[in-house]
Amino acid sequence: MSDSSRIFARYWIESAFPFAQAAEVMAGEQSSGTFVRVPGETEELKNRSAARVESIRELEPASAPSLPGARIPKGTSAPVYRRAEVEVSWPLSNLGPSLPNLLATVAGNLFELQQFSGLKLLDVKLPGAFRDKYLGPQFGVSGTRRLAGVERLPLVGTIIKPSVGMDPETTAAMVKQLAEGGIDFIKDDELQCDGPHCPFDGRVEAVMKVINAHADRTGKKVMFAFNLTGEVDEMRRRHDTVLRAGGTCVMASMNSVGLPGMVELRRHSQLPIHAHRNGWGMFDRSPAIGMSYLAYQKFWRLAGVDHMHVNGLRNKFCESDDSVIASARECLTPMFEGEGRGCEIMPVFSSGQWAGQAWDTYARIASMDLIYACGGGIVAHPGGIAAGVRSVRLAWESAASGVAAEDAAQRHIELRQAMEMFGQ
Amino acid sequence: MSDSSRIFARYWIESAFPFAQAAEVMAGEQSSGTFVRVPGETEELKNRSAARVESIRELEPASAPSLPGARIPKGTSAPVYRRAEVEVSWPLSNLGPSLPNLLATVAGNLFELQQFSGLKLLDVKLPGAFRDKYLGPQFGVSGTRRLAGVERLPLVGTIIKPSVGMDPETTAAMVKQLAEGGIDFIKDDELQCDGPHCPFDGRVEAVMKVINAHADRTGKKVMFAFNLTGEVDEMRRRHDTVLRAGGTCVMASMNSVGLPGMVELRRHSQLPIHAHRNGWGMFDRSPAIGMSYLAYQKFWRLAGVDHMHVNGLRNKFCESDDSVIASARECLTPMFEGEGRGCEIMPVFSSGQWAGQAWDTYARIASMDLIYACGGGIVAHPGGIAAGVRSVRLAWESAASGVAAEDAAQRHIELRQAMEMFGQ
Repeated sequence: MSDSSRIFARYWIESAFPFAQAAEVMAGEQSSGTFVRVPGETEELKNRSAARVESIRELEPASAPSLPGARIPKGTSAPVYRRAEVEVSWPLSNLGPSLPNLLATVAGNLFELQQFSGLKLLDVKLPGAFRDKYLGPQFGVSGTRRLAGVERLPLVGTIIKPSVGMDPETTAAMVKQLAEGGIDFIKDDELQCDGPHCPFDGRVEAVMKVINAHADRTGKKVMFAFNLTGEVDEMRRRHDTVLRAGGTCVMASMNSVGLPGMVELRRHSQLPIHAHRNGWGMFDRSPAIGMSYLAYQKFWRLAGVDHMHVNGLRNKFCESDDSVIASARECLTPMFEGEGRGCEIMPVFSSGQWAGQAWDTYARIASMDLIYACGGGIVAHPGGIAAGVRSVRLAWESAASGVAAEDAAQRHIELRQAMEMFGQ
Repeated sequence: MSDSSRIFARYWIESAFPFAQAAEVMAGEQSSGTFVRVPGETEELKNRSAARVESIRELEPASAPSLPGARIPKGTSAPVYRRAEVEVSWPLSNLGPSLPNLLATVAGNLFELQQFSGLKLLDVKLPGAFRDKYLGPQFGVSGTRRLAGVERLPLVGTIIKPSVGMDPETTAAMVKQLAEGGIDFIKDDELQCDGPHCPFDGRVEAVMKVINAHADRTGKKVMFAFNLTGEVDEMRRRHDTVLRAGGTCVMASMNSVGLPGMVELRRHSQLPIHAHRNGWGMFDRSPAIGMSYLAYQKFWRLAGVDHMHVNGLRNKFCESDDSVIASARECLTPMFEGEGRGCEIMPVFSSGQWAGQAWDTYARIASMDLIYACGGGIVAHPGGIAAGVRSVRLAWESAASGVAAEDAAQRHIELRQAMEMFGQ
């Protein structure tokens, strides 16, 4: 069977069992296994459907089991827990190109297997049949740039804060200040969707009135990602409300919405989908269980999101800078080999961001195809919002033209002020 | 504000910071916080919308941080990581009764906060407004019993194995043996949905032909949970196929389908929804991150599932018996105080189950309102499938009438054989 018809998944495992044996348990559990051999389990069927252990690469050993509940081999008194990367593959014909069933196959029961004191999905590689079935991102980088009217620099963005509690009018008043300050992109907080203090429809109406008036006056339409996270029919209706009001982006929380929910939204949507990954810590915070961003984002890109959060350098969360950069790069890397749709999307830098991280972010990803969202970094800038926006834009301009941060700060007061305020 | 309008969530936390301070960071992140105070954050808004730390109960200290990436308080050279249970509450009016937005609120960004070297959602308590908005289980215990024609004992069930790879005719042939063996309930494996070797429609047709013929002959219609996990439209179409063919149950993988997907299925469904929790290990396997089953199952019960997996005593996975029992009890416990719909559902015992666990399972949950699914425990019984089914039913009969396992085994060869084959 050729590689183009197999699904590959790479895992980090930790086990007191010999790796070959432990990996075969994984492969069995996720394809044709049960705890005793049953009558229907013929050799022919196994040859056709069994998952295959493709490779095992031993890593550093573990001093103790990372997770509780694991078994040790019978007769062992002093178990040694070792770690490895393993690759397992499945025939596509076990499931067909279905994202929900792919999840059950590569990230299902195996996390509970007793043979493992740690098991994490690191990456998946999918046959082109998935690309053929799913719509993927509708706007991606170029469509987002076109709608936002931003050609070369990152979209300079911010998040409406306080996270939740403001009414539509107060929100719109803040949007007015931000628009006048020159912002490209604004998003709802993920906690703000359709609560009684700030109903979705009322917020869209009030905010779009401001954005449309600003666009009429200046020719620049600020992209606002309205958080429509909800049931499928609610999301469709809210999308239509945004579209009718002249809005140019909707936002959904991936883990809240689920893959089929996102697929439905994508089918219906005429706007870019800004995907928020809140709850992501459950999947990736532990090195010993869960799913890496590399694997995670592939599911959602195929489902059709256009922007995906990646935190940012020196963020206020636990994610390391290396992880942030790897995630951002992955969003900009085609998912499939060869010709055609690569499903590239815009990484969204957010969490403790201000002008200061532009230089090393640019140095490390060598791209400006991103959304750079600063909260306090813009609205709490000592020179005001417009100065905050300018500080971020100047930072990226400088970074891209090879002007060092110190030199840029000497030239521009907005950068100097930002560095004094936010640079420790 | 009265308790009936607040959402409560209980967490296990681990932190090197004073608990009161760490808990306030959680509450802030999940309601009105940002990393610097912003203009719109008025006292009035904070009073209305801020999450509240309700209680903090200190637990045993930790010898080392459970997860990497956590910060320690400034100026600390030898940090002490301590653990506690904290309860946080939110005004319902921050979000309204929306499950997807509830998830973003109680299980969102907070898992990534640097103040914590461990953070797990243990339980949620929801205002009645959620019960009013969501349909909840349509069949639950009584509806499932009615459709399956099983009055008092657990539904004795099995899983089609090998997990994946058989064609519709081979599957139907196995169903015939199982039906003739007296089984109450059969489920697809979660890996089997609509792959090219075993298309959903063909499987339903072949299997229901057998089940309907058996029902015509004997009056007993075996309940078969067809795995329809997929996109929203696929699930609706597959449900209709099952319904048209006279089937009495559909199955969906919760983590694959997502909350809005399940809500859509529930709205459309005229059949009980058997909910598979594969991937659950990602949420609960680590004691330091994720979400307990107590919290998890409440989301899905409200969304409308009728059966939910809980593993089983001495299962082949990592879950402890105490955890299994707590989960099963919770499925049978009303979610809301006072009158009205309690959303009770049938726990599904599955994974390494055979007759032998009936006694202590019954002793510990004092209920027979459950599905008891044995794989090898039935199909690999030395006396054949019918003897396997009888062994399980006899075990539960004996347990419920206070007949000890040894005594029952003396009376019934099916139990003796099961104990010799599967005991220890």
